[in-house]
Amino acid sequence: MVTLKLKSEALRIINVGLEAFASDLASKDRAVVNVDWRPPLDVNPIAVNKISSAYEAVIAKANAEALKIINQGKPVLIGMGIALHTIPGMHKDLILHAGPPITWDKMCGPMRGAVIGALMYENRAETPEEAEYLAASGIIKYQPCHELGAVGPMAGIISSSMPVFIIKNDTYGNLSYATQNEGLGKVLRYGAFSPEVLERLRWMDRVLYPVLNRAIKHLGQIDLQSLIAQALHMGDEVHNRNRAGTSLLIRQLAPALLKTMESVEDTTAVLNFINGNDHFFLNLSMPACKCVLDAARNIPNSSIAVVMARNGTEFGIQLSGTGDKWYTGAALVPDALYFPGYSKDDANPDIGDSAITETGGLGGFAIAAAPAIVQFVGGNAADALSYTRSMYSICFGESQKYQIPALDFRGTPLGIDVVKVIINNMVPIIDTGVAHRNPGIGQVGAGVVKAPSEPFVKAFEALADMLQSN
Amino acid sequence: MVTLKLKSEALRIINVGLEAFASDLASKDRAVVNVDWRPPLDVNPIAVNKISSAYEAVIAKANAEALKIINQGKPVLIGMGIALHTIPGMHKDLILHAGPPITWDKMCGPMRGAVIGALMYENRAETPEEAEYLAASGIIKYQPCHELGAVGPMAGIISSSMPVFIIKNDTYGNLSYATQNEGLGKVLRYGAFSPEVLERLRWMDRVLYPVLNRAIKHLGQIDLQSLIAQALHMGDEVHNRNRAGTSLLIRQLAPALLKTMESVEDTTAVLNFINGNDHFFLNLSMPACKCVLDAARNIPNSSIAVVMARNGTEFGIQLSGTGDKWYTGAALVPDALYFPGYSKDDANPDIGDSAITETGGLGGFAIAAAPAIVQFVGGNAADALSYTRSMYSICFGESQKYQIPALDFRGTPLGIDVVKVIINNMVPIIDTGVAHRNPGIGQVGAGVVKAPSEPFVKAFEALADMLQSN
Repeated sequence: MVTLKLKSEALRIINVGLEAFASDLASKDRAVVNVDWRPPLDVNPIAVNKISSAYEAVIAKANAEALKIINQGKPVLIGMGIALHTIPGMHKDLILHAGPPITWDKMCGPMRGAVIGALMYENRAETPEEAEYLAASGIIKYQPCHELGAVGPMAGIISSSMPVFIIKNDTYGNLSYATQNEGLGKVLRYGAFSPEVLERLRWMDRVLYPVLNRAIKHLGQIDLQSLIAQALHMGDEVHNRNRAGTSLLIRQLAPALLKTMESVEDTTAVLNFINGNDHFFLNLSMPACKCVLDAARNIPNSSIAVVMARNGTEFGIQLSGTGDKWYTGAALVPDALYFPGYSKDDANPDIGDSAITETGGLGGFAIAAAPAIVQFVGGNAADALSYTRSMYSICFGESQKYQIPALDFRGTPLGIDVVKVIINNMVPIIDTGVAHRNPGIGQVGAGVVKAPSEPFVKAFEALADMLQSN
Repeated sequence: MVTLKLKSEALRIINVGLEAFASDLASKDRAVVNVDWRPPLDVNPIAVNKISSAYEAVIAKANAEALKIINQGKPVLIGMGIALHTIPGMHKDLILHAGPPITWDKMCGPMRGAVIGALMYENRAETPEEAEYLAASGIIKYQPCHELGAVGPMAGIISSSMPVFIIKNDTYGNLSYATQNEGLGKVLRYGAFSPEVLERLRWMDRVLYPVLNRAIKHLGQIDLQSLIAQALHMGDEVHNRNRAGTSLLIRQLAPALLKTMESVEDTTAVLNFINGNDHFFLNLSMPACKCVLDAARNIPNSSIAVVMARNGTEFGIQLSGTGDKWYTGAALVPDALYFPGYSKDDANPDIGDSAITETGGLGGFAIAAAPAIVQFVGGNAADALSYTRSMYSICFGESQKYQIPALDFRGTPLGIDVVKVIINNMVPIIDTGVAHRNPGIGQVGAGVVKAPSEPFVKAFEALADMLQSN
């Protein structure tokens, strides 16, 4: 396929073909959004023409169906289990990772570090050198978390004996999975594998998991949609800020932890651990979005993204209308605010499955609910509002469950429409933590970053190829 | 004293005399504040002239000192105790109530109901009739909570055997007190005294108090300033919305509750009770403000209010510069949003010590942090911002501890300056729950109400009389 520079001629055709869409844009918040001008994307004009003529009659209908499914999704935490016995398709030689598929030789530092740590945690290796040898040997297989219904922040490594949360989409019955959040500092997800990291993971298996599991069983289920909706009213966007979500979770868990207590010491340690880790809820908000979006997969012709994920080397997306195919581009090094002593030179390219929150209308898309994040990276409350407002123009609709108080409780922008991304030449924004490029150092910054455009261009062109007439 | 209608002549004099103050106003947010025009207040022009000529050289200096003390205050929860043995001046025949001083015959329905309930709780009466007889007999004495360092929401009744929280101003050493919050529904503070109300109060004494007391002792102290500051970042204004504050409190208490547990059943019941009552934190945010403001009492010439409180009949204020004198006016019936089946005809005039939160720069003054409250009463997020912005023009300064995210983390308006209230003809706004005028029915509405102007006019004139030259 020859990719040609999109000319203004083609843009006009798009606007003619997408008249309903253009008037829709005009009626929303376009006027208040302050978007830098960027050069038009390189998109195959044949694809543009195909999409243009099919948008209203075919694609928009499919998107409406996808959005309805997403809006009707209802994520609930229903239990916990060991990955091997819980995640369908998991096996002892398999390691799940964040982002699109990747081989050992292409993995970035933090992901390699996390794989090394996981192999030592699994007692498959005694030293990092042994682990590295095994990791590269071909015995160990690698697959994206996303392909097995799971999600993982940063390196996103899940190995067979790790405990995972089980989240159910109560409306459609599908499940999703995520490990327990380790906290900040030296942690596996940032590629650390020192003895303290492995000891914490073992404590999380030995103590945290059974204590939480009993409490969750006692409660039957925990309504994650309700917790997320409340957290948005309490200053979280449930990606980089999870203080409210974690607080509300503790509130709900505490009586059940007592009811099911076997050891005061262990239960106290669990409460202290969660209380000491405001990101604990992230590993529930992520799979909550995952199971809601998974229900909207495989709707022919839909241009809505159901996955955005990064493996630290590549950024990949999947569309509802293009099956299990990944569309990827190089992951960008975030233009973030770096912690004292660190700079962009230290940063790993963007990494983690946590962009599933943005895909689900949260995170950067809901950042107007969490101005503290924007302030942290040098912006102000008006910037936070602008970020969220701009995302309405690349989304097919709005959430019926998640609202932004500062926008008069308007639903968050929901259903990233790759056609709108291309037409508006505007990529999704993502709240992100920045990992050091070397394993084990941890977080070196945070920011609001833009997705690369390449995966969206590829997905747009692929959808054009796959368009089915009714 | 002859009170004359304030003429435009006098207003001009004020503006000449308060030049620095006027320019200060102009440089702030006056332009964006949308204030209804109201007729000028009736203020004695002699007082206006006195205040006018003394403002810059004398009053503003005193206010700066008061504001500094308020900003340096640091409220911490340090323990609990039984009122009789804890609140200096408490005795067996004394009942403390919300607002300025009042006698039994003048008390409104909800306050009478709460007194009846308290006397039955104290086993001083077996029936409501006996209690009413005793209440009117002269044996029982009544005094404002505020005069003994305490505060109470709504009727604000504290009797001698009730457990109270002890809050310390860690900077200045003074203490304040409040009972434990009972939750919603049929509760003493709304004037209910049915058996379920008394049984709940007894459970709060028998179970809630000792369980919490042990946990607080174990923790040593709980930093309420930090909890309030965080709650403002999480959608609370800690008067009518305390969901975040209550969540953060549970989070901090839970591990200590386990460490000090004597009965799993009791501790579980305590966690369930607090988890079921989002207003639990109100009875900590109120005394937190109280002890901070009490430290700024008795600064000669200061026109800053250290108390605003309502007893359901009268609204009273106290100024730092006018000692223990109350300045009162009729409490207004709130123009609130009424619950289905109720109207303004059912409403009791404004009641409760909870306006101490507004006096401390929170509640209505911080409502921009809690747009959910404004939405509840039919407004929008912009209204919430306007409410808070307008309060800057009647405050002497801003909080250095409490911030509004949506205003780019600007400090909340702090230090109500009675001179600015008069000059701007703008009274404080107060978030409030509305009690039914009859005892025992409970809350019938909620809203954002205005203070009556009369107490401010009286306080202004009294300050003029008491002005001391340096």
